[in-house]
Amino acid sequence: MPTGELRYTAPPANSSGGYEDEGWVWGQIKAEARRDAESEPALASYLYSTILSHSSLERSLSFHLGNKLCSSTLLSTLLYDLFLNAFSSDPSLRSAAVADLRAARERDPACVSYSHCLLNYKGFLACQAHRVAHLLWRQSRRPLALALHSRIADVFSVDIHPAARIGKGILFDHATGVVVGETAVIGNNVSILHHVTLGGTGKDGGDRHPKIGDGVLIGAGATILGSVKIGEGAKIGAGSVVLIDVPPRTTAVGNPARLVGGKERPSKHQDVPGESMDHTSFISEWSDYII
Amino acid sequence: MPTGELRYTAPPANSSGGYEDEGWVWGQIKAEARRDAESEPALASYLYSTILSHSSLERSLSFHLGNKLCSSTLLSTLLYDLFLNAFSSDPSLRSAAVADLRAARERDPACVSYSHCLLNYKGFLACQAHRVAHLLWRQSRRPLALALHSRIADVFSVDIHPAARIGKGILFDHATGVVVGETAVIGNNVSILHHVTLGGTGKDGGDRHPKIGDGVLIGAGATILGSVKIGEGAKIGAGSVVLIDVPPRTTAVGNPARLVGGKERPSKHQDVPGESMDHTSFISEWSDYII
Amino acid sequence: MPTGELRYTAPPANSSGGYEDEGWVWGQIKAEARRDAESEPALASYLYSTILSHSSLERSLSFHLGNKLCSSTLLSTLLYDLFLNAFSSDPSLRSAAVADLRAARERDPACVSYSHCLLNYKGFLACQAHRVAHLLWRQSRRPLALALHSRIADVFSVDIHPAARIGKGILFDHATGVVVGETAVIGNNVSILHHVTLGGTGKDGGDRHPKIGDGVLIGAGATILGSVKIGEGAKIGAGSVVLIDVPPRTTAVGNPARLVGGKERPSKHQDVPGESMDHTSFISEWSDYII
Amino acid sequence: MPTGELRYTAPPANSSGGYEDEGWVWGQIKAEARRDAESEPALASYLYSTILSHSSLERSLSFHLGNKLCSSTLLSTLLYDLFLNAFSSDPSLRSAAVADLRAARERDPACVSYSHCLLNYKGFLACQAHRVAHLLWRQSRRPLALALHSRIADVFSVDIHPAARIGKGILFDHATGVVVGETAVIGNNVSILHHVTLGGTGKDGGDRHPKIGDGVLIGAGATILGSVKIGEGAKIGAGSVVLIDVPPRTTAVGNPARLVGGKERPSKHQDVPGESMDHTSFISEWSDYII
Amino acid sequence: MPTGELRYTAPPANSSGGYEDEGWVWGQIKAEARRDAESEPALASYLYSTILSHSSLERSLSFHLGNKLCSSTLLSTLLYDLFLNAFSSDPSLRSAAVADLRAARERDPACVSYSHCLLNYKGFLACQAHRVAHLLWRQSRRPLALALHSRIADVFSVDIHPAARIGKGILFDHATGVVVGETAVIGNNVSILHHVTLGGTGKDGGDRHPKIGDGVLIGAGATILGSVKIGEGAKIGAGSVVLIDVPPRTTAVGNPARLVGGKERPSKHQDVPGESMDHTSFISEWSDYII
Amino acid sequence: MPTGELRYTAPPANSSGGYEDEGWVWGQIKAEARRDAESEPALASYLYSTILSHSSLERSLSFHLGNKLCSSTLLSTLLYDLFLNAFSSDPSLRSAAVADLRAARERDPACVSYSHCLLNYKGFLACQAHRVAHLLWRQSRRPLALALHSRIADVFSVDIHPAARIGKGILFDHATGVVVGETAVIGNNVSILHHVTLGGTGKDGGDRHPKIGDGVLIGAGATILGSVKIGEGAKIGAGSVVLIDVPPRTTAVGNPARLVGGKERPSKHQDVPGESMDHTSFISEWSDYII
Repeated sequence: MPTGELRYTAPPANSSGGYEDEGWVWGQIKAEARRDAESEPALASYLYSTILSHSSLERSLSFHLGNKLCSSTLLSTLLYDLFLNAFSSDPSLRSAAVADLRAARERDPACVSYSHCLLNYKGFLACQAHRVAHLLWRQSRRPLALALHSRIADVFSVDIHPAARIGKGILFDHATGVVVGETAVIGNNVSILHHVTLGGTGKDGGDRHPKIGDGVLIGAGATILGSVKIGEGAKIGAGSVVLIDVPPRTTAVGNPARLVGGKERPSKHQDVPGESMDHTSFISEWSDYII
Repeated sequence: MPTGELRYTAPPANSSGGYEDEGWVWGQIKAEARRDAESEPALASYLYSTILSHSSLERSLSFHLGNKLCSSTLLSTLLYDLFLNAFSSDPSLRSAAVADLRAARERDPACVSYSHCLLNYKGFLACQAHRVAHLLWRQSRRPLALALHSRIADVFSVDIHPAARIGKGILFDHATGVVVGETAVIGNNVSILHHVTLGGTGKDGGDRHPKIGDGVLIGAGATILGSVKIGEGAKIGAGSVVLIDVPPRTTAVGNPARLVGGKERPSKHQDVPGESMDHTSFISEWSDYII
Repeated sequence: MPTGELRYTAPPANSSGGYEDEGWVWGQIKAEARRDAESEPALASYLYSTILSHSSLERSLSFHLGNKLCSSTLLSTLLYDLFLNAFSSDPSLRSAAVADLRAARERDPACVSYSHCLLNYKGFLACQAHRVAHLLWRQSRRPLALALHSRIADVFSVDIHPAARIGKGILFDHATGVVVGETAVIGNNVSILHHVTLGGTGKDGGDRHPKIGDGVLIGAGATILGSVKIGEGAKIGAGSVVLIDVPPRTTAVGNPARLVGGKERPSKHQDVPGESMDHTSFISEWSDYII
Repeated sequence: MPTGELRYTAPPANSSGGYEDEGWVWGQIKAEARRDAESEPALASYLYSTILSHSSLERSLSFHLGNKLCSSTLLSTLLYDLFLNAFSSDPSLRSAAVADLRAARERDPACVSYSHCLLNYKGFLACQAHRVAHLLWRQSRRPLALALHSRIADVFSVDIHPAARIGKGILFDHATGVVVGETAVIGNNVSILHHVTLGGTGKDGGDRHPKIGDGVLIGAGATILGSVKIGEGAKIGAGSVVLIDVPPRTTAVGNPARLVGGKERPSKHQDVPGESMDHTSFISEWSDYII
Repeated sequence: MPTGELRYTAPPANSSGGYEDEGWVWGQIKAEARRDAESEPALASYLYSTILSHSSLERSLSFHLGNKLCSSTLLSTLLYDLFLNAFSSDPSLRSAAVADLRAARERDPACVSYSHCLLNYKGFLACQAHRVAHLLWRQSRRPLALALHSRIADVFSVDIHPAARIGKGILFDHATGVVVGETAVIGNNVSILHHVTLGGTGKDGGDRHPKIGDGVLIGAGATILGSVKIGEGAKIGAGSVVLIDVPPRTTAVGNPARLVGGKERPSKHQDVPGESMDHTSFISEWSDYII
Repeated sequence: MPTGELRYTAPPANSSGGYEDEGWVWGQIKAEARRDAESEPALASYLYSTILSHSSLERSLSFHLGNKLCSSTLLSTLLYDLFLNAFSSDPSLRSAAVADLRAARERDPACVSYSHCLLNYKGFLACQAHRVAHLLWRQSRRPLALALHSRIADVFSVDIHPAARIGKGILFDHATGVVVGETAVIGNNVSILHHVTLGGTGKDGGDRHPKIGDGVLIGAGATILGSVKIGEGAKIGAGSVVLIDVPPRTTAVGNPARLVGGKERPSKHQDVPGESMDHTSFISEWSDYII
């Protein structure tokens, strides 16, 4: 496969081993919640209602999302039903959730447990709700998908168009202010910080949003506009504004963004930034950056 | 009228033809909602409560805002009353809402219907609620205006000071994180993306926020500080930081922002960026922008 | 004390004179609320429930935070209890709240009264709730601290890790989108605008977030990454991206950020930017900034 | 007019003098609420939201009923609108409410003020809500009338069929458990205690419920079944079971009920029991009653 | 089978024809709700959320009960789940609900439609919720059964101990104040009016509550105490107090209750009072009853 | 002490041994709740929020009552505060609650545990809330007492005037529909069933409600009117209507009520009916009672 080619694939219907994984992670989550409930009675009611009273991850997640996203005109029971139907019928939604939980746990040193991510990470919750909105969108239930999209944007300040395609193993870290447009595609094992925009070119419809390759890391506040390709394993520095393709395994920084090492011979890194989460090591090579 | 002069005018008390427009748009909204309710029973309750049970756009909008912005200490019935009184007594609020609905429908390819904007666009909803807060402010009901301001900032993450003056035909696209200061002025037919700041110079009171001319387009994450003029039809690139006046029909990009084409002979475009929504075509002219 | 050294100190357990201050400010708040309740009956119920029915600032604040941050799974009575216990037992929390109220009143010309800040400033409210989460964190009640952290991030779009240490006299202005990481430290009398990130370097734990000296001003949308020191009284321009230490009383602007006046001989200001709130006066010295 | 004839008449569309009355009572209510708010800050928020923030009795009552009767599927804003439209458009509803307020104030020694009745008397509130349900019923909006009926029965445990016709100056004292059937008619100035049933004969439709004359008093727990006439000014003792007509100004007591004084020459009283509220003076004449 | 013998049998697991019935009744309910939603837009949201958005009677009923019975500490999603699991897994619960709907429709002339009963009859709703509490009780999930019992008693003022066994085709008419004790048994096709008590003898445990035979009618406010048998097809007059067995097809009236026709040769009726609902025809035979 | 004399005494400010009792009962309640939470995860969240997260009975009870009795205009935090202040400052309220818990546990065979009573018995909860309303009444905080009274009547269908004086060791069994008037007095160790009325004589103020001696048992649906004395240890049969004094240790039954054994030589029982709860043993002596 040519370097930099996008490898987004829809989550497989039956990821081998997915079930075991799910079981293992769910077991961890329950154990963590049980430990926390014992040590902190003031939180036990919350932990029982969100985790410990449920028989599966999909029920816990459906309950939690239903209660987080409901409003006076979209009742929690309706949303709970909607989420539970989706998570129960589509195993790929569950395996993606598990992969995202693992991503947060492995990449974010502030993530102290799986249950911490499940309960408290608005990026994780927004992403799982988005996956259900995306499923509705593909089933041509667009008004419902858009109503759900609106609730996610209100509650989590995370605005992902239901048509956007997102891979697995995604970490939306902090997540507030993330905007992902209608024709955007995000590969697997990508990490995206808060205030990141994957925006469009303008008022014309059609393909107009970025395609993010596998393993990409996008720093806080970065803005990427138009149907540009961010190559596999590339890194986009915080606050960068990117309007042109970025080659695989290179680093683009600044506003306007430039490649570290220069356009002709950009530095190439060997790690997968979306997993290694190295935000700042390019500083020494960023020739301009001398305060 | 000299090019670039600000043409902000308070919405006319009696926009000719306004009523017909309002009737036509409201008819569209009901037809869309009826169609969606039929195709998606799970959403029908939501659509009836927010749109189909109401006899006018002002009632629908007042109900929706009242239920979105209420809290345990500011009840929905109080807010509903407040909004309904404002929208019923001031036709310019209604014609501005209609103009904003049209703006979203025409400029945002992801806006699939008027009802989609009315129900789901936090930028649209925040803007209409702001117009009511602004009316209260002008009526010297400032504590109430500020309480409403606070609810809008909490619920939609859109922070527009109630004293800020905003024209008609405005699109706040995505809207999360928008901040508009007390003495800011925004003309007609302006489009503003998310995370845009129209901020002040510091701790001194008085005139200290930007004046945005008609037809301006401000890209995602742009920061404009101080009582500077952004000339009619100008375009501010995403992520730009602007602290000086920008001439009409020019494009400022970067941090610090520069004029595309250079300070002396900036490129001038003929379209109205606030309406044409062209975010990225300046790239070829942005001499620095070579990844 | 060497210039630029961090002077963060945990709020003293018994700030002398703190009580008088608290009494005075609380008296002001009640007087303001009484005046507003009389002039605006529609708001009187809100003002009585949040302020006028309470016998102390700590009760008012606990009530208000409890009702703002509660959810269907974390009840207002539980949170009210939690806040009231914290504010009652730890006088430093109360004196910090008073210092923050003063900061908003003195530095933000849009802040028309103490009660306006107490009721409506999401930055103020998020900060006080964070102080309680921080107290829980130090008491090793981490799951509860993280649950509270999550509610603050959902409701106010302000994401401060409960372990982060924050001084007194802090103004989080507008506040939406602020992210402060686990090992960040913020000194006294600091002013931080919205969308500011004090972020980490990556996936490794340990000390990895910025240390902000006393009196610093950080402009809207600035991103500071890594365990860098922002020296006492420094100023970070809006939209700046900072990955290296910034000397005391200097100004860093741009992406990548540079020191105004140049690296070798940076301009030094005499005022305390965190208090004087001068966001834009460096423009004339910013040699690059010529639109 | 023959003694004992039923004089139920639909409330007049334009009761002369009604408006002045309404104004006077509303003035009293506001004065009482203001006094209570001053003496009891803990209740002031409640008093402002229910009474003091409103410009008229109809608005206060609509707000209070909307918030009392709402549920997660029948929102307060919808009910508020419904009540406000009814009370605004039909003056007879308002004059009946005023007459009922006067009835409680004059007849119940435990009723310390008009505002006490308006806020706290479930019998008063259920009756006003019933009047609106009755109006809907007469307008052939029966499903809505029945939904409202159901909410009244749930919230107040008062079950009055929307078709039942009820006069003015009614006191439902304590009110819990009152059941009034579809074809029942209640005259003016009637007082009915809790657990009273005006029930039907069985499964056949048509006229099958009691007709209660003007000025009747019905004691706690009395059961009256079938289309029987309770004559003007009659008194029904507590716990009585009545299945036959009761002549005017007589007293029926017991299970089965008998006339005090005997069937042939029943004692006749001169007062109007519905107003004089004398529950027990017949004891001496109740020949059987010797413990 | 000897006349008067109790024939209570647990609802059969698979009532033949039950499914068709359920389908037919559900079809009626949807048709009624659709008609009402069209004629009354203000109610359409309610009708869609409670009926028209659901794919089956069990889902509609579970949703409606979940939202009616929830509280701030027992969330609607939890109750919805509980009800849905019970109704889905136990067909006898569904066929009993259908039989109860039919009973209301056939016996109560004020019951205008099946949907009217499903949505608005607190007796019907309390009875269905009781059946689920009874199922939990039999499954030894007693604390949960008792918590549900408590919610039913609070919300509907209907207090049926979860251990009480209740047949099918039951009409609890008006229902407020009904109390049914722990060891009570109610046969099939029984009609019970409001304020009826099936109470115990005292503080000793064991069998201590009434056994009500098939087809019995119990009038409003009747009190039956102790483990007495009310024979098949008997009728208990309103307000009666019964402490001794009542023979089949006889009528007991009064306090203390006596048999109509006398103890030795009581009148026997041929109809089934629980179905014919004749409350008052015994009057002519009630020798004492001469007002 | 003369037979039949009322022995109502205000609960002592410092009941000796009260504290130990309270500790023991609270320990039992926590143990029961812990056991139930373990056996029934679906209920654990409820049990933790209401009982297990609290450090004392007064906190648990205040939380539970605050959440039960709150409304959209009387917030749970306000009520929680009110209850907690009352229960914390007045030990007699706590010892009365403990005595009532014991009464339910000992006298009601359906009461399976202390926690069952604490959580689920509306009679218990209404009585404790009444005690707080009574305290407010005595403190001349009457509007607040009446607002609380109204909430109790709405939520529990138990209507006890805040001025009514009630002893300790009270069991309100089932409780729905109980009405207790302003000048009523209830002694210690009294048991009162549902639908019991302790009502007044009419519209004149002053002393006009029953005085219930120690150890009295009042059966379901009994109505006692006027300032009559129900002597110590008397028993009032279900459905009785009593308007005259009842001597100590006698039994009054029927409507109109008569003394069992006759007026001249009434049967006297040796047990304390309010504790022995024998509802029906008088049947054999009730000469009239022959069905």
